Amino acid sequence: MPYVNIRVTDEGVTAEQKQALIEGATDLLVRVLDKDPATTFVIIDEVATDNWGVDRESVTARRRRETAGRK
Amino acid sequence: MPYVNIRVTDEGVTAEQKQALIEGATDLLVRVLDKDPATTFVIIDEVATDNWGVDRESVTARRRRETAGRK
Amino acid sequence: MPYVNIRVTDEGVTAEQKQALIEGATDLLVRVLDKDPATTFVIIDEVATDNWGVDRESVTARRRRETAGRK
Amino acid sequence: MPYVNIRVTDEGVTAEQKQALIEGATDLLVRVLDKDPATTFVIIDEVATDNWGVDRESVTARRRRETAGRK
Amino acid sequence: MPYVNIRVTDEGVTAEQKQALIEGATDLLVRVLDKDPATTFVIIDEVATDNWGVDRESVTARRRRETAGRK
Amino acid sequence: MPYVNIRVTDEGVTAEQKQALIEGATDLLVRVLDKDPATTFVIIDEVATDNWGVDRESVTARRRRETAGRK
Repeated sequence: MPYVNIRVTDEGVTAEQKQALIEGATDLLVRVLDKDPATTFVIIDEVATDNWGVDRESVTARRRRETAGRK
Repeated sequence: MPYVNIRVTDEGVTAEQKQALIEGATDLLVRVLDKDPATTFVIIDEVATDNWGVDRESVTARRRRETAGRK
Repeated sequence: MPYVNIRVTDEGVTAEQKQALIEGATDLLVRVLDKDPATTFVIIDEVATDNWGVDRESVTARRRRETAGRK
Repeated sequence: MPYVNIRVTDEGVTAEQKQALIEGATDLLVRVLDKDPATTFVIIDEVATDNWGVDRESVTARRRRETAGRK
Repeated sequence: MPYVNIRVTDEGVTAEQKQALIEGATDLLVRVLDKDPATTFVIIDEVATDNWGVDRESVTARRRRETAGRK
Repeated sequence: MPYVNIRVTDEGVTAEQKQALIEGATDLLVRVLDKDPATTFVIIDEVATDNWGVDRESVTARRRRETAGRK
């Protein structure tokens, strides 16, 4: 009965990628801990880049710097 | 001071149903553990069906199969 | 497929009370949203009173004040 | 490597306020526990007022009462 | 910068299995979403069987029934 | 009514440090968003180093490498 919560930034994750995350996480729990896939939940939270901070800045600010740095 | 987090798929939960969940969860904590309702939080997360997986597939895919099966 | 997470302070919750919380939360989701109990998860987290803060103090400190105040 | 999750009602938090929360939470972990800011995550969840309950009612209902009371 | 939280019942997960979950979840995020492993967190919560409910009963009660049924 | 959840590795956080985290996080929400401290919850989760992964390894393994590297 595992519960897997995957939190990522909201930067265009497609339905296919979500399906791949669901399958991959479920298979991982089946393979490593012999869990029943029928009661394995995988929940994906997409978080706005303004709302995710790392190293004292939002991912929005970080992406802006990264883009500027590439020019 | 309990904190109750209810996560459900985003499939048309009404404001009345949310209110019923808030009341029911608060009353449960008061009844079973004698908690103070004034500091009992209930937070409802509605998760897109693409983002909720069970049994290796998204709820979107599951609902599609269920609908097809009914025909 | 709901997921309910109940977080309370670790102050002697019994197995019977946990069972009552599990039943009550499941029944609430069945009654209000017509969810399937077979895939309704209820997870109870018991948090040490040192680790739960409200109103700028830990529950440990609050309980100490409450006990002192009663004398 | 701390993970800080701040959940607040969705009532017009600005990007500047989010940035202040990210900086403040990161600095707190650095100051108190000497954590590395480069691997300190701060994630802000904005929750609709219909979905946040306290004292048996949604924040939507509470705000309505507060506004009515002020007249 | 993904955050993956895996919640399972506390039923003897070994350090090797935890390591396998950490590697598998990280690799999944790298493969599907091209995330940087250096900032991918995987946190495993082991929940006491008394504290995990499914289908209106605790996993403790369910395991007891399963064991009795096998005799 | 904010809810702040701080997750850190379980590496000897003292009661004084927990109190400092509770005060600091509460004050942050008061300062930035003018929240009421009386209904601001701060919950600290201490996670075993075997159960926290970053960069494809547990913090237990990482600390072992760091210690070895220092010799």
